[in-house]
Amino acid sequence: MTHPCITAVGTALPGPAVDNDHLAKTLGVNREWVDLFIGTKTRHFAVDLTTGEQHSTLTDLAEEAAATAMRRAGARPQDIDFVVLATASPDELMPATVNKVADRLGLDQIPTYQLQSGCAGAIQALDLGRLLLQRPENRTGLVIGGDVCAKHLRLDRDFTRLPSHELVNYVLFGDGAGAVVLTGQEDAEGMAVHTVLNQFAGRGQPAGQVIRWFGAAESTDGVAPAEEDYKAIERRVPHLADEILWQLLETTGWTPEDLAYVLPPQLSGRMTRRITEHLQLPGAQEISCVADTGNNGNALPFFQLERLAERIRPGERALAICVESSKWLKGGFAVEGR
Amino acid sequence: MTHPCITAVGTALPGPAVDNDHLAKTLGVNREWVDLFIGTKTRHFAVDLTTGEQHSTLTDLAEEAAATAMRRAGARPQDIDFVVLATASPDELMPATVNKVADRLGLDQIPTYQLQSGCAGAIQALDLGRLLLQRPENRTGLVIGGDVCAKHLRLDRDFTRLPSHELVNYVLFGDGAGAVVLTGQEDAEGMAVHTVLNQFAGRGQPAGQVIRWFGAAESTDGVAPAEEDYKAIERRVPHLADEILWQLLETTGWTPEDLAYVLPPQLSGRMTRRITEHLQLPGAQEISCVADTGNNGNALPFFQLERLAERIRPGERALAICVESSKWLKGGFAVEGR
Repeated sequence: MTHPCITAVGTALPGPAVDNDHLAKTLGVNREWVDLFIGTKTRHFAVDLTTGEQHSTLTDLAEEAAATAMRRAGARPQDIDFVVLATASPDELMPATVNKVADRLGLDQIPTYQLQSGCAGAIQALDLGRLLLQRPENRTGLVIGGDVCAKHLRLDRDFTRLPSHELVNYVLFGDGAGAVVLTGQEDAEGMAVHTVLNQFAGRGQPAGQVIRWFGAAESTDGVAPAEEDYKAIERRVPHLADEILWQLLETTGWTPEDLAYVLPPQLSGRMTRRITEHLQLPGAQEISCVADTGNNGNALPFFQLERLAERIRPGERALAICVESSKWLKGGFAVEGR
Repeated sequence: MTHPCITAVGTALPGPAVDNDHLAKTLGVNREWVDLFIGTKTRHFAVDLTTGEQHSTLTDLAEEAAATAMRRAGARPQDIDFVVLATASPDELMPATVNKVADRLGLDQIPTYQLQSGCAGAIQALDLGRLLLQRPENRTGLVIGGDVCAKHLRLDRDFTRLPSHELVNYVLFGDGAGAVVLTGQEDAEGMAVHTVLNQFAGRGQPAGQVIRWFGAAESTDGVAPAEEDYKAIERRVPHLADEILWQLLETTGWTPEDLAYVLPPQLSGRMTRRITEHLQLPGAQEISCVADTGNNGNALPFFQLERLAERIRPGERALAICVESSKWLKGGFAVEGR
């Protein structure tokens, strides 16, 4: 079988970019801490920081990203044979957001799947898309990822008293969605997906990241709605990234010298720099966007893919590396321009 | 390729059975209404109705069901090549429950997937299991489904004043989990899965079922945490069930006379009787369990499969039909004893 091909990418960001100055003033926290400790410059939120009102849903963003990808690929609703959406933060628990997106895009009587995961979900969705293209009835599908994390965050808090494992949620993340049109057609132009890695690697490890509540509910019994074990993340992610790199190289038979581009894990501006240094791929150009978008979870790999699609030439090779710190998932994929 | 085979089924229910007498007294509602309108006799809850305390998590139930299925199949952790879990009500949004279950079962370095859906999720998970078995590196996997809906329900309410589209949540549902061991090995004994149907059918239709909140949070602005459009469900489900039946028959090439068993949609005792009458399959024995378990969502098809596994003989054929009313998903599968 030929490798499936990403023929177009689309992305969507809610509202205007929120810079560190604005964020620090709104939360009443130290701007230098955000600049240095996080290293992210701007992000977009689906919630207005001043009023607390949610102006975009995941359905809105996923629809916009998917519609853009479809338009760029020249794909009509009747050309789409399946939809896979990955998210950690669905609009509701039911109906699954993927089905509301399918409805808005005018799709019907096709299989839909929604994967619940952090940023590794985007990789899992791409993997499921590849699997579905092995069925003869499927020629082309949509693979979407996105997150609207801002709705989990309460804005009526005294941020100066918040422990850093909670405060980090407010400065690390952003909202957004991305999508690709994936096709099994042999003559398609774009990026051929050579392999996808998706592996649970958390046996016996406590969770590195937890999101407990669906909505902006009151904390219960002092339990935080979301928290990060960022020390465990800092310690483990560079090593996992290294493992993923070598696993992908082994599967594809490629060498580090074959790589024109690398799409590193997008945890924060600062962590991404550390990981990239650790990977030691001097010949590969880095494709990163987290400093501009914030960590928008399942959307991030699509933002990287969108930037890659603008640059990659036929025959050029790229690896994407993705770590989900929730319960330690290794993810990644290998693409080649064609 | 030979059809993948379900070699064992396992299920798990939390706490003791709660009968209508107990439920009606606790909620202060009319027992005859529960008996007649719902037609379900007992259900199990992961939450103690008296104290409100949650004594079982989805992780607990899914682990128990999967461990039982593995023991019955004689499968060790190192035999499991992937895990798929379907649920509408994960323990947290992150980490995905599937990874906590994988950890408890002693699994590691394998792909895991969690599908977010109502009862159609169990069908989607079975479908994804089949897809994964097409990869040469995968021989055997776990497919799990389960729901713990009771945690979404507030117990400190005046139930005599609750509108019926909310009250129905308290009497219709139950909690539980189920699992199968699915293998691609040609000489496996059990139930061969001939086909799986998974189709979004909700274009332009408002949602029939909504679950908004993850935890037992306060209602916000008078918005109910969960609600059912049970009139739309009563109207649409029998027709969708009929469509699914004929789509499965067409795909498999089987006739209604070939069917020894039918596993109808398990919405409630009463609705299931109506649907079964509508399907007009007098030669097929009905495999239902909702009257005993309540509607426990993604777990239900596994409870039906467990009952089927005890009866089905080599060469006997069965169809399962499943409708998810959230945003109208058609699901189903065809199995044959071997």
